Amino acid sequence: MIIALAQFNPIVGDVTGNAARTIEWMERAAEEGTDLIVFPELSVVGYSPHDLLDNTAFIDAVESAVRHIHAHVPEGMGAIIGAPMRNPDPVGKKLLNAALLLEAGQPVQMTAKMLLPTYDVYDEYRYFEPAERQEPLLFKGVRLGVHICEDMWNLEEYATYHMYDRNPVAELVKQGVDLLINLSASPYAHNRHDVRTGIITILCKRHGVPFLMINQVGANTELIFDGDSRVHAADGTLAACAPSFEEALIYWDTQAPESCRVPQHDRIADLHDALVLGIREYVDKTAVFDDVVIGLSGGIDSAVTAALAVEALGPNRVSGITMPSVHSSEGSVSDSEALARNLGIAFHELPIRAAVDAFENILKPLFAGTPFGIAEENIQARSRGVLLMAIANKFSRMVLTTGNKSELAMGYATLYGDMSGGLAVLADVFKMDVYALAHHINGRAASERIPSSTIEKPPSAELRPDQKDEDSLPPYPVLDDILRRYIEERQDEEVISAATGHDRSFIRSILDAVDRNEYKRKQAPPGLRVSVKGFGSGRRMPIVVRVNRAAIEQMMNELNEEAQA
Amino acid sequence: MIIALAQFNPIVGDVTGNAARTIEWMERAAEEGTDLIVFPELSVVGYSPHDLLDNTAFIDAVESAVRHIHAHVPEGMGAIIGAPMRNPDPVGKKLLNAALLLEAGQPVQMTAKMLLPTYDVYDEYRYFEPAERQEPLLFKGVRLGVHICEDMWNLEEYATYHMYDRNPVAELVKQGVDLLINLSASPYAHNRHDVRTGIITILCKRHGVPFLMINQVGANTELIFDGDSRVHAADGTLAACAPSFEEALIYWDTQAPESCRVPQHDRIADLHDALVLGIREYVDKTAVFDDVVIGLSGGIDSAVTAALAVEALGPNRVSGITMPSVHSSEGSVSDSEALARNLGIAFHELPIRAAVDAFENILKPLFAGTPFGIAEENIQARSRGVLLMAIANKFSRMVLTTGNKSELAMGYATLYGDMSGGLAVLADVFKMDVYALAHHINGRAASERIPSSTIEKPPSAELRPDQKDEDSLPPYPVLDDILRRYIEERQDEEVISAATGHDRSFIRSILDAVDRNEYKRKQAPPGLRVSVKGFGSGRRMPIVVRVNRAAIEQMMNELNEEAQA
Repeated sequence: MIIALAQFNPIVGDVTGNAARTIEWMERAAEEGTDLIVFPELSVVGYSPHDLLDNTAFIDAVESAVRHIHAHVPEGMGAIIGAPMRNPDPVGKKLLNAALLLEAGQPVQMTAKMLLPTYDVYDEYRYFEPAERQEPLLFKGVRLGVHICEDMWNLEEYATYHMYDRNPVAELVKQGVDLLINLSASPYAHNRHDVRTGIITILCKRHGVPFLMINQVGANTELIFDGDSRVHAADGTLAACAPSFEEALIYWDTQAPESCRVPQHDRIADLHDALVLGIREYVDKTAVFDDVVIGLSGGIDSAVTAALAVEALGPNRVSGITMPSVHSSEGSVSDSEALARNLGIAFHELPIRAAVDAFENILKPLFAGTPFGIAEENIQARSRGVLLMAIANKFSRMVLTTGNKSELAMGYATLYGDMSGGLAVLADVFKMDVYALAHHINGRAASERIPSSTIEKPPSAELRPDQKDEDSLPPYPVLDDILRRYIEERQDEEVISAATGHDRSFIRSILDAVDRNEYKRKQAPPGLRVSVKGFGSGRRMPIVVRVNRAAIEQMMNELNEEAQA
Repeated sequence: MIIALAQFNPIVGDVTGNAARTIEWMERAAEEGTDLIVFPELSVVGYSPHDLLDNTAFIDAVESAVRHIHAHVPEGMGAIIGAPMRNPDPVGKKLLNAALLLEAGQPVQMTAKMLLPTYDVYDEYRYFEPAERQEPLLFKGVRLGVHICEDMWNLEEYATYHMYDRNPVAELVKQGVDLLINLSASPYAHNRHDVRTGIITILCKRHGVPFLMINQVGANTELIFDGDSRVHAADGTLAACAPSFEEALIYWDTQAPESCRVPQHDRIADLHDALVLGIREYVDKTAVFDDVVIGLSGGIDSAVTAALAVEALGPNRVSGITMPSVHSSEGSVSDSEALARNLGIAFHELPIRAAVDAFENILKPLFAGTPFGIAEENIQARSRGVLLMAIANKFSRMVLTTGNKSELAMGYATLYGDMSGGLAVLADVFKMDVYALAHHINGRAASERIPSSTIEKPPSAELRPDQKDEDSLPPYPVLDDILRRYIEERQDEEVISAATGHDRSFIRSILDAVDRNEYKRKQAPPGLRVSVKGFGSGRRMPIVVRVNRAAIEQMMNELNEEAQA
């Protein structure tokens, strides 16, 4: 039997477009003599349609799209697609996260997801009722153990914070299956490739059954799907694999065992590819703007953002604007100019002094006698924001913001200033990784794309004379480590202090700054998510909140003393 | 037995502060001879701490706070509090949404929530494992049917989109209870008071048991809790009730049946009180800014926002800035001035012309030869945003934004312009209700607070000559009705067209505009939620999305034709 793995890139909500492309892919596969083609989780609607799923008219449209696809399955072939389907039980959530086996002229065989991720960026229990059980689907006499994404992740070896009392894969195997098939919408994060390999290898060895995993590819707002679809033979070895970060239709012949070279993954190379894909997808799928515009400061963040944008869209669709003020260094303009020249992008210099002066004059009656401070710094950043947005509005471009995860964590950014834009490319990339990306970009190009002076200069916001980031923030290697522990590993003050050797009050000052700046992140543009815990929909912190770590420490000490007394 | 209903206002995350106030209230109640005091759902942490619940150190702090409270329960008294507690079962979510009965020197009696709302603004299954069952708690020989918020809402008469296969109240009654006690964190929305009364009356009559509901009060970012705590006697009549929108400690003597006058609720009066509470709470609980600043346009939205802010904070904590441009009407300044005088707030006029000119000069090399358009309109709105934020930064004030739900729905607002600020007061109030609020405010004051010229003039953004809202938008009575159907009642094109008599293409143009502007709302400040479906955390729509209603209609028509053929 020839099985096609459709590593497919749906557009969220576009049921008619996704259905048309599903039909095209089925026809392509039929020409190759395919028996069965398998699409990813929710392939008809993309992952995730979010609250579109609450809209009855949208679910009617999905049902129509499924009927339409079913009517076009090539004779003799089977197609497994993913779609939200109405829950036949009137009690419980109204939908199931379903996989449908469609054959020409045959009734639909349906199975549905049992384990519904409801943590991090996932809200599946908001919409879906978990299936009570799954039965193998029958196709040409073969028993297919079809299940969906999270259903395969309940392995003690890899458990994190999601633990379930059911094990869908084991329950399917117990009923007798010839092949396990997992439909996924599993986003990229560092190391995710290896984790998938680890889990599937264990499952193959444990159950002695081949395993096919087919994942979405492409990006939807903040989520980047890397694909990484594959087949493992019953002994766990890799029998077929799709490339990462691009659409692919690959074939696997169950009768002709082949082995596939295990792809090598490098953390920074993958990060680079993920961000490039994320930019391209955001611009192309929204289809509102053809081009992007980026404020170039001469610093590393805007340089890396511009270089990634050029790889995503080509140099003709990217322009750079440098907007020097009286506090800007000479390098601010010359390094930006060099970068633009290296990248081959349009470049303009728009000094902001006249706008800043105008604002300061307008405000003079109110501000007279007050010292230069945050208000004046922000006027500069916001004047740049106004100019970039004006250019974007005038020429129908989108602004890419350039702030990194370390800055966003600490609130070291100006709302409505450098935070203005449609997509935050580096929002989930710590500062030290921005440097690593710069080296990777230059290394790949075998020439200087990002000027070495940009890489070497000490980071600065240049909003007051001789300002350096390190005046306000700890050195980035120290800061990034603490932030990673707090945000991604969910450690708190005491644990981080013990692990890093920094005293608690220093750690506390950083964690408090992260908490305090939630209001800024609430208004940030969506950011491309590349870690296991990014800002955005995966980290939902209250804005009006008071976590008084000093008072908590004191209360706990007092209770301990009382207990010992 | 004397039972105290503690209609309590916790601060999210502030476990030590909430614990200290819990102890104070227990002591106050003890002085009144109280046997049992009941606090609301999650009273120790506020509703909702969101992802703070994923932080182990935070849960340790909660456990300490519970121990601390337990150690201070007055002798002979019982206290029921709400807190997230660790799930003793290693499988499943790590926490339970628990109610704890604390008595001096006695072991804790615990019960936990069975029905976990996971829709709209609620994410409870993200954190909590549903309890498998609940048993009555025993206090001084009385069997208390303690359950939590949603546990009482599974009534067919009131079912909406949350349907469960368990009925915790019925299951408790079956085990024998003398009194039902519901700990709630149930936010205000229009009509919510009557729905609660309806549900509890049915439950009392059905089960013949008195019912005590104790709700949080106060506001946490977007959610406004109205309190509305009460006791219904076994026959369903109201036996005691707390005031809405304020903290209260009220007492009910189980032996001395009294009746309580049923409070009258007026939709606009409640809306007014909710918004005033929401503003006051946001400012006071964040405790970063003492004062607020508002851009006054002479229009109805900024006038109502300012009037509400004055009621929330007093006139000395509110200032108004009018920022005329060359396109501003004369009334823009004079009506703003009259408003400020009526309200007794500080007032400044800052003409924006010099800033707008500066930007246009800077951009002249790029914009030469292009016509006046959205870019130029937005430069005006954004120049105002820069000025307001500069004032906010300089004097440590918070900007209140003034846009209403109709505008926000249609994207009729400028990102980083009039959308700049910390809290969007009217984000969940349709335009026609803004007018109703203006009349209510003037009626209450028995004098003109909001100038009649502001109420009477046709709405305009005043960003180009002679601009009126109705040039770009349908008349507000028509628009609000369509938006309410789409957003709050989840109707779509076909249904709305049939219900309103407007043709499908007109409805489609409005729904498409709502969808297309999700990216703006993503970056909007948090808004006070007062409807059953506001923008913000209760409505999670994808940003990169394509809903092609014309293509869907065509596909469905073709399928129908094929089916009939």
